[in-house]
Amino acid sequence: MAERGAEGGGVDPSQVVRHFLFALAAGGAGAAASIALSLAVDLAARLSGRFPWLLLALPALGAASVLLYRALKLPAHLATDTLVDRLRRNDRVPPALAPGILAGTFLTVLGGGSVGKEAAALQMGASLGALVGRPFKLAPVRRGAPAIPQGYAAATGMAACFGALFFAPLGSTMFVLELARFDRAVARHVPTLLLASFAAFGIARLTGIGDVIPRIAVPAFSWPLVVQCVLVGLACGAAGTVFGTGLRLARRVVRRRVGRPLVAAVAGGLLFAGIVLAFGWQGFEGTGMPLLRGALAGHAGGADFAVKAGLTVLALGFGLKGGEIMPMFTVGALLGCALGGLTGAAAPFSAALGLAAFFGAASRCPLAALLMGAEIFGLAAAPYLALAVAVAYAGSRDVGVFGHGTASELAR
Amino acid sequence: MAERGAEGGGVDPSQVVRHFLFALAAGGAGAAASIALSLAVDLAARLSGRFPWLLLALPALGAASVLLYRALKLPAHLATDTLVDRLRRNDRVPPALAPGILAGTFLTVLGGGSVGKEAAALQMGASLGALVGRPFKLAPVRRGAPAIPQGYAAATGMAACFGALFFAPLGSTMFVLELARFDRAVARHVPTLLLASFAAFGIARLTGIGDVIPRIAVPAFSWPLVVQCVLVGLACGAAGTVFGTGLRLARRVVRRRVGRPLVAAVAGGLLFAGIVLAFGWQGFEGTGMPLLRGALAGHAGGADFAVKAGLTVLALGFGLKGGEIMPMFTVGALLGCALGGLTGAAAPFSAALGLAAFFGAASRCPLAALLMGAEIFGLAAAPYLALAVAVAYAGSRDVGVFGHGTASELAR
Repeated sequence: MAERGAEGGGVDPSQVVRHFLFALAAGGAGAAASIALSLAVDLAARLSGRFPWLLLALPALGAASVLLYRALKLPAHLATDTLVDRLRRNDRVPPALAPGILAGTFLTVLGGGSVGKEAAALQMGASLGALVGRPFKLAPVRRGAPAIPQGYAAATGMAACFGALFFAPLGSTMFVLELARFDRAVARHVPTLLLASFAAFGIARLTGIGDVIPRIAVPAFSWPLVVQCVLVGLACGAAGTVFGTGLRLARRVVRRRVGRPLVAAVAGGLLFAGIVLAFGWQGFEGTGMPLLRGALAGHAGGADFAVKAGLTVLALGFGLKGGEIMPMFTVGALLGCALGGLTGAAAPFSAALGLAAFFGAASRCPLAALLMGAEIFGLAAAPYLALAVAVAYAGSRDVGVFGHGTASELAR
Repeated sequence: MAERGAEGGGVDPSQVVRHFLFALAAGGAGAAASIALSLAVDLAARLSGRFPWLLLALPALGAASVLLYRALKLPAHLATDTLVDRLRRNDRVPPALAPGILAGTFLTVLGGGSVGKEAAALQMGASLGALVGRPFKLAPVRRGAPAIPQGYAAATGMAACFGALFFAPLGSTMFVLELARFDRAVARHVPTLLLASFAAFGIARLTGIGDVIPRIAVPAFSWPLVVQCVLVGLACGAAGTVFGTGLRLARRVVRRRVGRPLVAAVAGGLLFAGIVLAFGWQGFEGTGMPLLRGALAGHAGGADFAVKAGLTVLALGFGLKGGEIMPMFTVGALLGCALGGLTGAAAPFSAALGLAAFFGAASRCPLAALLMGAEIFGLAAAPYLALAVAVAYAGSRDVGVFGHGTASELAR
């Protein structure tokens, strides 16, 4: 809170109270959104597992989600990357996005599409944050300071909802800051972001509903373990570059060549169902949580990560609704697990390293990857995670799933 | 007829009459099959053009054809290549194949799948020929000669049905001889094959129902035209190698990796529909007759041949029912047409060269390609066709759609 009163101009106590209450409200909304999303997507995943033929309905379900977006007057291509662009440009986030992405993700996962609910949580959080922020008539806390930008309320909602879903309030706040590239308008409100995120986290903890990633044992220090961190980091850096490039390329090619989103969603659904059926890849459907749990228990085939990554690029590239973050976690963990045996390191720990390193490289948000990893796997894992993430980030090209990272912006 | 009485043993007059009548019966049956096939597939193509959404039903239609084969107790993988293998090994051809492939091709073309009816005509002809041959109790014309092999009646039916469909009785007889690799058991019956083929051709001519490929103008001799023949031959040799290898590989991979034919047909239908929809390739659906006419009128995009070839490999590789010959003609004509401008040769004539050259290279039946080409485009075109086919055959690897060619068998 130091910087608020640091420079002259005087603090407006009414605005301090407003910001405080807004943070609590955004936290509550974020937690509610996270819980609704978790329940809905888990139901979809269970139905998809029970009735495998739902895969054949994926083209129709994809078409339904595009039509829903049209009915809600949402831009057809509004995915996480375009939302992040809006955040950076301080554009408005439409309130209808929250129900839209919730239903869209439900439909995609119901048909077995390889998408996650984490990026959907970001989108819901942004949409709800912007909505919840309106009645508070937020203004700068310091009198005479420049007006509060549009993006602030959305960013607060994102931090809250993501923090609740992952039980990782610190990483989630850092993630939003990195996505906003430490824009001063967002960065000066870190206290509000943290408050909202911790409030949402607290509510989610009470209910226990969210994405519970299993803890793994952190091995004692050894030099082979350090080598393993570097190896996993290098592999995840390369794979993250390919994934980020592939997803951006797929989205661009589909938007240009296919054009109409309805046709793209149906075509994507047909292709996805055809490939899954042809190769018997039913196990790679959905968010990937079972695969992630498997990897963190030490089970992963050598090429599993590539299959999951390819299917995710296909599903998201063709505009099926859903998020990219949980698939990224899964891909990273599968890759890390597959590399487990190289130096004799424990495969589960190697999977945890892969999760953080791949996410950091592909999203260009290394600090968030480190903090989330530490919050999920415990502080004892932090030094190893830091090494793996740093190697992955440094060893990858700056083609992020959500655009360039902060570092390259600063270098300009 | 010289060889029949050449060596001693005496001729059985009753068998001469039987063979003669069988040839006429096979010709009638072949013509009837060709007409039924043409009417059915043309109807399917018209429906597919009128109702574009039928593309989305391709997975279901593919599944239906697999289930139909199961109900008819036909082997799931019985395609033209396996049928030709049977012919070569003198195995039995099941009578249920005729209705099976008729209905299967109808269903695939109805859903827009890229398959032809020519190979279906071969299969129907073989099945009907074998059936029609039974009551004639055919035995060797020469007393004491080795027994008539199973494959003979089937081969006669193939020549008849194919000759009727294409109005090309000479090429069709040569095609069957080349497919049988001039096996003596078949080759010594050339008179019967020709009689059946011409009888079927005559009936088809009267009705006018079959595949009418438009004639094109044959240009006057010029050296650039000779260069064009060599160029088209080289290109078709290379493309034919890729196509033949691709189709054999696709079939092998799908049979091994996917296994269950029902799953493969559904997956293939999904993939086909997805790709066509994604890239807007609706014009490449079906047998390709409209594309072929376009190419022979001088219209073809530079990469059209590759698209048609790829879609055909996909459809047939995944076990959708139908034939490979008309797609081969189309691919060759599109390639030839695209190469038309290189030496200033007329694009339609270049398309005709491509048709024959690509078919000769991909099927490993160059003499049939030449004869068919001459029958379709006129005798004046024969010298140029011969050059293009010879270059294509010599310049391609011996990986035929229906297995190795005769030449490599003789070389063993």
